[in-house]
Amino acid sequence: MTYRAQFRCFSGCPGTHALTEAIYRCPTCDGLLEVHHDIEALRDRSPRQWKELFDLRYRGHEFPYGSGVWGKREWIAPQVPDDLIVSTYEGATNLFHARRLGAEIGVPELYVKQCGNAHTGSFKDLGMTVLVSVLRWALRTGAHNTRVIACASTGDTSASLAAYGAIAGLPVVVLLPRGLVSPAQLVQPLAHGATVLALETDFDGCMAVIRELAKRGLIYLANSMNPLRIEGQKTVGIELTQQLEWEVPDWVVLPSGNLGNAAALYAGFRMMVDLGLTNKLPRICVAQAENANPMYRAFMAGSEKVEAIAAKKSHASAIQIGNPVSAPRAMAALKAMNGVVEQASEDELADACARADRTGLYTDPHTGVALACTFKLRDRGLIGSNDRVVVVSTANGLKFTEFKLGYHEKTLADVSPRRANLPITLPADVERIATTLQELSAKAGS
Amino acid sequence: MTYRAQFRCFSGCPGTHALTEAIYRCPTCDGLLEVHHDIEALRDRSPRQWKELFDLRYRGHEFPYGSGVWGKREWIAPQVPDDLIVSTYEGATNLFHARRLGAEIGVPELYVKQCGNAHTGSFKDLGMTVLVSVLRWALRTGAHNTRVIACASTGDTSASLAAYGAIAGLPVVVLLPRGLVSPAQLVQPLAHGATVLALETDFDGCMAVIRELAKRGLIYLANSMNPLRIEGQKTVGIELTQQLEWEVPDWVVLPSGNLGNAAALYAGFRMMVDLGLTNKLPRICVAQAENANPMYRAFMAGSEKVEAIAAKKSHASAIQIGNPVSAPRAMAALKAMNGVVEQASEDELADACARADRTGLYTDPHTGVALACTFKLRDRGLIGSNDRVVVVSTANGLKFTEFKLGYHEKTLADVSPRRANLPITLPADVERIATTLQELSAKAGS
Repeated sequence: MTYRAQFRCFSGCPGTHALTEAIYRCPTCDGLLEVHHDIEALRDRSPRQWKELFDLRYRGHEFPYGSGVWGKREWIAPQVPDDLIVSTYEGATNLFHARRLGAEIGVPELYVKQCGNAHTGSFKDLGMTVLVSVLRWALRTGAHNTRVIACASTGDTSASLAAYGAIAGLPVVVLLPRGLVSPAQLVQPLAHGATVLALETDFDGCMAVIRELAKRGLIYLANSMNPLRIEGQKTVGIELTQQLEWEVPDWVVLPSGNLGNAAALYAGFRMMVDLGLTNKLPRICVAQAENANPMYRAFMAGSEKVEAIAAKKSHASAIQIGNPVSAPRAMAALKAMNGVVEQASEDELADACARADRTGLYTDPHTGVALACTFKLRDRGLIGSNDRVVVVSTANGLKFTEFKLGYHEKTLADVSPRRANLPITLPADVERIATTLQELSAKAGS
Repeated sequence: MTYRAQFRCFSGCPGTHALTEAIYRCPTCDGLLEVHHDIEALRDRSPRQWKELFDLRYRGHEFPYGSGVWGKREWIAPQVPDDLIVSTYEGATNLFHARRLGAEIGVPELYVKQCGNAHTGSFKDLGMTVLVSVLRWALRTGAHNTRVIACASTGDTSASLAAYGAIAGLPVVVLLPRGLVSPAQLVQPLAHGATVLALETDFDGCMAVIRELAKRGLIYLANSMNPLRIEGQKTVGIELTQQLEWEVPDWVVLPSGNLGNAAALYAGFRMMVDLGLTNKLPRICVAQAENANPMYRAFMAGSEKVEAIAAKKSHASAIQIGNPVSAPRAMAALKAMNGVVEQASEDELADACARADRTGLYTDPHTGVALACTFKLRDRGLIGSNDRVVVVSTANGLKFTEFKLGYHEKTLADVSPRRANLPITLPADVERIATTLQELSAKAGS
């Protein structure tokens, strides 16, 4: 295989670094790194050949190609040996055609990409399979010998890292501010046997500690600063296009906090254009919670620079981020994809979830943010009735029982439930129940 | 399409009924019904042609063939028109090669079929897609006009029914004994807008009411007595064989309460043998909770008849059933598949979950029952080191946060956690943390 990928500076500083290096920032400017692919080498297959290869593997049982990530390995991390790949059959998630919800808003071609139907219940698996597999490769080649993988995270990232570490038999450490996170939020990493360290500091303090530990080579860093995660996540855009028979949709709406997924989405579409698989980019809508909206503010101000803010509490906890790591990457994506940024209040995101759930989806609050923003773009006419729209659902609704229950029991902060639904108590009387059902049936039949 | 499927009596009473009839018991003997396929007609394709067709469709993008159920539609419900199919891309779930867990028990070929990675988080979707699609077909053809779908269920069945009903725009009613089930357990059907009736009676009282409502044609019955559910569920055995490149495994272990899934598993393998796709059946292990073990008791007593018992409380709540509806079907499966029945105590099931989770799975308590029974069969030598074993995981671990948390916080009834894991509090001191990590790294490297 002649394909090659390497780290290089996102801002253009000279020099490259092997993917097996334990390096997370540009050594020249201390900015973000990105994975650079040898596009010329990848042109040895025609666009049609790439599509055929990807389609053939998509249905495959041969390890590791059934994975939506490793089925596109040449575009991701081409040199990792098969036996080092740690995969849970990532991706290949349902592109749910939301016919009822689409009909309600006058967009027949509304789809929801169900990335939460994954091994650990979120889209984070897409990136983590790449990171952990590349780490094993680095350990085998002796590029470094840091076996302990660590992240500072309260949610999906720590769950995903802990699972992949457990499968690989590598130790995982999760750093957290003490008292901020309950064991309930940590049950996945705890179950997977991760060492969870509750530090007597705040989240920034944890990040400072983890960067120092990484600098000393004591841990391998799994936070989203590590560009290997982006490489796996970029398959979302490629895969949803593949599911639409290689037709790029008009819009992709995705909830974003740290903004890595917006950058990843663009990277995937960019690569398809560069290699001739499509000649069009979709428009992107970056959907933020109003309580954590630094990119929305920059967009509204016409600024290219995202200023850090203090994020307020949001039910969409995974995107409750005031100082997004991947802001420069995401801003480049927004520009290239003729994008917009929209926001949703707590009430709007909860209502969007409840509305979607009534049509058979089971949405997490982040998907609620994306849906609420979709509704707004539709109301404003930015999304037209003939547009094909894909909303990216980033996590499994089953992770958010308290949020759902709180909605229907009307106990959620800053939310006025208009679609609450609770059990009705009745005597076990067939006649009485029959009457209730006949009313229901008449209402439904009308 | 010339393929045909009809209802007929499981015990052999004469007569057949269209799949679109609202019929749930044999009108002659009041026993179970089954779906009978015209096997002769299905022989128009060779075994190789069937395999090629199924492989071609597997996870494809053309609706509805990407669904693991509808990709095999000729074997399931051949005549349902495409536009009436309600599908969430069922099945095609990961056959997780549990390398670490397998190595621990000396069975390198140990697999876990991840049926819980489904739209509603359980294997129930496999059957529900068939039931709801056939109902829509019945409504279109005018076979009957009962639009309200109902079940008595406290868990996965009501969640799945509510989601499919919501997608189809059909009203769903869930009947429950008042006070027995909390809103937390009901959050999925509530979110999907189902009418949940809490009746002032016990579970048997709910079943009596629902059967009377069905008899009057006021509801269409979605409980597992309806054999359409079995038809969808039978794809589990076919699909896992397909994933093993059409090689039948030596053992399939599955948790079972109402025993419908055991019957379904056999139905799938039987059809593969009848049509020549394989010439072998796997051995089956029906795994029951010790607290709800009527089939285990029958098996140990050498009896062919499962006597009803009063089930005791189990963490594996979905199989906490003392009087299983599908017992006759399951007994036939057990006999044909040279099967065994095994049981797991509360402590054993919880320990099996924790053990598996440490290797990267995230198991629900029912899968814990199946894994604990697998360990026992291995200890007894019934499962050999060269055997290929598939454990069927029926639900998503994300549905069982309280169970997992209770384990790690050591608060579960009848469980003595030996693998509990909780956060460690430390000062935010890099030197101190570095020491902790070096100890961890040394331990992991050894």
